Amino acid sequence: MNANINSPENVPSGQSRPENRGRLLVKCPDGPGIVAALSKFLFEQGANIIESSQYTSDPQGGTFFIRLEFDCEGLMDKRDAMEKEFSSLAEEFSMEFRFAYGSERKKTAIFVSKEPHALLELLWEWQSGDLPTDIAFVAGNHEEARGMVESLGIPFYHIPANKDIRRQVEEEQSRLIEEHNVDVIVLARYMQILTPEFVEKYPNKIINIHHSFLPAFIGARPYERAYNRGVKLIGATSHYVTNDLDEGPIIEQDIERVDHRDHVADLKKIGRSIERRVLARAVKWHLEDRIIVHGNKTIVFQ
Amino acid sequence: MNANINSPENVPSGQSRPENRGRLLVKCPDGPGIVAALSKFLFEQGANIIESSQYTSDPQGGTFFIRLEFDCEGLMDKRDAMEKEFSSLAEEFSMEFRFAYGSERKKTAIFVSKEPHALLELLWEWQSGDLPTDIAFVAGNHEEARGMVESLGIPFYHIPANKDIRRQVEEEQSRLIEEHNVDVIVLARYMQILTPEFVEKYPNKIINIHHSFLPAFIGARPYERAYNRGVKLIGATSHYVTNDLDEGPIIEQDIERVDHRDHVADLKKIGRSIERRVLARAVKWHLEDRIIVHGNKTIVFQ
Amino acid sequence: MNANINSPENVPSGQSRPENRGRLLVKCPDGPGIVAALSKFLFEQGANIIESSQYTSDPQGGTFFIRLEFDCEGLMDKRDAMEKEFSSLAEEFSMEFRFAYGSERKKTAIFVSKEPHALLELLWEWQSGDLPTDIAFVAGNHEEARGMVESLGIPFYHIPANKDIRRQVEEEQSRLIEEHNVDVIVLARYMQILTPEFVEKYPNKIINIHHSFLPAFIGARPYERAYNRGVKLIGATSHYVTNDLDEGPIIEQDIERVDHRDHVADLKKIGRSIERRVLARAVKWHLEDRIIVHGNKTIVFQ
Amino acid sequence: MNANINSPENVPSGQSRPENRGRLLVKCPDGPGIVAALSKFLFEQGANIIESSQYTSDPQGGTFFIRLEFDCEGLMDKRDAMEKEFSSLAEEFSMEFRFAYGSERKKTAIFVSKEPHALLELLWEWQSGDLPTDIAFVAGNHEEARGMVESLGIPFYHIPANKDIRRQVEEEQSRLIEEHNVDVIVLARYMQILTPEFVEKYPNKIINIHHSFLPAFIGARPYERAYNRGVKLIGATSHYVTNDLDEGPIIEQDIERVDHRDHVADLKKIGRSIERRVLARAVKWHLEDRIIVHGNKTIVFQ
Repeated sequence: MNANINSPENVPSGQSRPENRGRLLVKCPDGPGIVAALSKFLFEQGANIIESSQYTSDPQGGTFFIRLEFDCEGLMDKRDAMEKEFSSLAEEFSMEFRFAYGSERKKTAIFVSKEPHALLELLWEWQSGDLPTDIAFVAGNHEEARGMVESLGIPFYHIPANKDIRRQVEEEQSRLIEEHNVDVIVLARYMQILTPEFVEKYPNKIINIHHSFLPAFIGARPYERAYNRGVKLIGATSHYVTNDLDEGPIIEQDIERVDHRDHVADLKKIGRSIERRVLARAVKWHLEDRIIVHGNKTIVFQ
Repeated sequence: MNANINSPENVPSGQSRPENRGRLLVKCPDGPGIVAALSKFLFEQGANIIESSQYTSDPQGGTFFIRLEFDCEGLMDKRDAMEKEFSSLAEEFSMEFRFAYGSERKKTAIFVSKEPHALLELLWEWQSGDLPTDIAFVAGNHEEARGMVESLGIPFYHIPANKDIRRQVEEEQSRLIEEHNVDVIVLARYMQILTPEFVEKYPNKIINIHHSFLPAFIGARPYERAYNRGVKLIGATSHYVTNDLDEGPIIEQDIERVDHRDHVADLKKIGRSIERRVLARAVKWHLEDRIIVHGNKTIVFQ
Repeated sequence: MNANINSPENVPSGQSRPENRGRLLVKCPDGPGIVAALSKFLFEQGANIIESSQYTSDPQGGTFFIRLEFDCEGLMDKRDAMEKEFSSLAEEFSMEFRFAYGSERKKTAIFVSKEPHALLELLWEWQSGDLPTDIAFVAGNHEEARGMVESLGIPFYHIPANKDIRRQVEEEQSRLIEEHNVDVIVLARYMQILTPEFVEKYPNKIINIHHSFLPAFIGARPYERAYNRGVKLIGATSHYVTNDLDEGPIIEQDIERVDHRDHVADLKKIGRSIERRVLARAVKWHLEDRIIVHGNKTIVFQ
Repeated sequence: MNANINSPENVPSGQSRPENRGRLLVKCPDGPGIVAALSKFLFEQGANIIESSQYTSDPQGGTFFIRLEFDCEGLMDKRDAMEKEFSSLAEEFSMEFRFAYGSERKKTAIFVSKEPHALLELLWEWQSGDLPTDIAFVAGNHEEARGMVESLGIPFYHIPANKDIRRQVEEEQSRLIEEHNVDVIVLARYMQILTPEFVEKYPNKIINIHHSFLPAFIGARPYERAYNRGVKLIGATSHYVTNDLDEGPIIEQDIERVDHRDHVADLKKIGRSIERRVLARAVKWHLEDRIIVHGNKTIVFQ
């Protein structure tokens, strides 16, 4: 249904057959032999490692993280056996792990309010074939974005919201999320606060864009506060949503230079262009399984 | 005495005769006719305007700021008469103003502790002819920098400091500042807190470098706190010192990208290169009379 | 007809009444008294200078450039008399000059081929109220962009093109340009070469985006050549079109970092995001009369 | 002899015992099982992989590159046996390979002319413990840098040079290079052309800094040409020297923004700060064995 354009030029190098492409993310106590065991395992499955990134929080007694991207002929047929076999290896090294498959595109829901810039950037990236996802639906507490969204063949749901009907709104949202088997929820400048219950249902699955360089200007009206403080740079921060306001694990941040001539309206305008690119990068890395959350931080394997 | 190298190549365009170069900074209530009055005044003095930058905080009833850089044959002879004559114009428009002269280089004192990187950058810029100042002296509460400083013909004073002898230390510093007719005091990672009395003596004349992107991580150990928060960018901020810790008017800020692999020691190393360039820019702009402080903000005419 | 959104928030500071806003651009031999004469003139017209930027190519015997932005009650009524009166001042100082008026938005034509990213960025900026222009029409040698363009209420003309029918195509384009009173023509990745006759008709009025950091990779297939050379940065350049291929006055350039993992398709993708922002900035500065062409260079008053 | 400061704070994370740290760089035809074989090999040597970066030029029939950094108790004792044992593995996969050892710091020679900025940056990074090398000597065709260099305990040789005595000069340089067992030669704005014979003796071992964003402005006087072209960004490029002028494999590039106000002298000043950081990065990556040359390109594992 989605009118996603995947012109040959947009296929990243070497990803011509997504059905044979797999990813393995692993987190375990560091120790000798982990890379050897993992690469031996993949080799024995007939997989060729295309990309490998690892990180050790501390060479002495730290935690080890690895992301392996591989090609494997007939991957979807081998999948069940492979995952089962991996379990015993995982047990031996006390690994937490996750397999992801190129043929299983993640499903995304996008929540918006009135300002469309962050949504538009995501749609634009998606339409260019640069966001590997199916956009299940867009839900807005205003009608503004409907035309744009529906013209791309994506369902748009108008769910008016305010703090008095928060639970009712979230029930409707949750129903849609389940109906569409959504994997990731993107708050594209969605100006409503979520209840703790909603947030807890989707751990590390809700991505927000905050319009400041966190931890500066936590909370409301960051551009006004940036203006009043006279900062020379403004920023935006994309993070996973937790129940500590603007305190969730940071995925990506960026900034632009401003000066004394920029009033609040100018900061907002400049800020919009930062917000849209920061959010688009964060969502893309999530979709490509490049992010591991560790405590209140992210490891991002680029 | 200072071994400042001013090779012809380093002379910025059109500044071949600094004794004829003047600057006029003005701040007044906005209204019609100000630019006309100022440019007529300079024209009648025989001055040619080389550079002009202006800013109005609000076109309706705001404050007007202008910086004029001009060339004027025989400027130093005309100086007294010109300043006197300007007073009546200034009164008419309720102007605050300041004249500065290319032949009167500002005198700078630099305070350091152990880490020399910010000092070294200033010395390097100064030696290349890019910091238009006479460095009156460097004062350190450690001996580390003496060799480097004295090898350039600059006096170095070792003034051990700790919080118990703060007043005594500042008396010694003030004595040196007066003895050397110092115009601006640069805290190049000087890790001591100054007393309110000292700060009040030198309003908008003490420039500090703080090792974070303010207002994030105000106070001590910003790199440790940045590491713990998992930020993806770290920064540095140069500001005028006031008696609100790290709350003075911001002159310049910059940032660098970091990632999950960077431990605190890495952040400090990356941070050093941000700190040194941010402080050098701020000091340079101050020396070139490019900064007007307005409330708790700066207008920087670049 | 144009569905341009100018929400109050998007009005840049102090531009609440565009009908009273004027701009004056001047170029003349440098000499004393020019700023005084200009500011006196504007003061006598009842104008208040809001923004002023000047530049002298050489303080000794160079060329002087100034851009003045001013507010003037009843500007459109005074306009003819003011311009006439200015002529004698202009003659005295041998000035070339141009007045522009906030109430006269420039009319833009956009030419595209298949790739829509540069067009989309312009439409997006325009729709946000950040491009002060009326988009007269979009002309494409392919049909791809029609839906998007017409949904915004902008006429779209499909003019198939190839080198054999170049003159015929340009006749059609010229006819549309005259019919719509177009002031500026933007080549938003329009992949056709223009004839010398067409280019000469619109001096400093055709803005192109070239997909390299000129003068590196002049001509065709710059991303392929950048890949083959192994550069670590790729760029884009917006310039006025002249009859020397990719040699016209440069308005704006920008770059992004790439590395050995980026194949040609990756460079193109990264490049698209550079191209769109570089072109949007160049067009905006042109529309705001911030650019003066001097020889083969631009003076851009930001 | 070298007064290299390695304060604990400057030790990068997890590099506390350099004598146990090793690096293995491998290049071979891509195929299944390479990572498995390499990681098994290191595991059996008792090595723990700390950092691993790989790249495949093309998943179908391309070339595979990997850089492994590992810790291994008693590495220097095991070294000979390990390298011998590795040979048979290397043969099996047709690998080119190189082991490097943390306890064997590379020896660097730096060539300079009059301008000291690039040299000073290298000395500064080295003194801060950020350039893991022994600086064997600095050779200059002018005397300017002697004081600075010798004050750090590094030998300085004055070898006057001009094109008529090129061979004689290079004989003297080669003698010093052999005498000091130099591994890498850094041209820190050394303004002399090297003979083909000299260049051929040190393939991928001579690092130059060119003062433009190559391939723009190949050859002499790049800042003058950048000024004349009216570019809006200037850059610098560090590359390995080959016998094609400014055409060797690019290691690193960076740029800064300039504008119409910047004359040639300004471009040179801004350029110096780009040159020094670009060269310092390139040299650092070389010293850390992060660079593999492949054809006329570099793979840089950061």
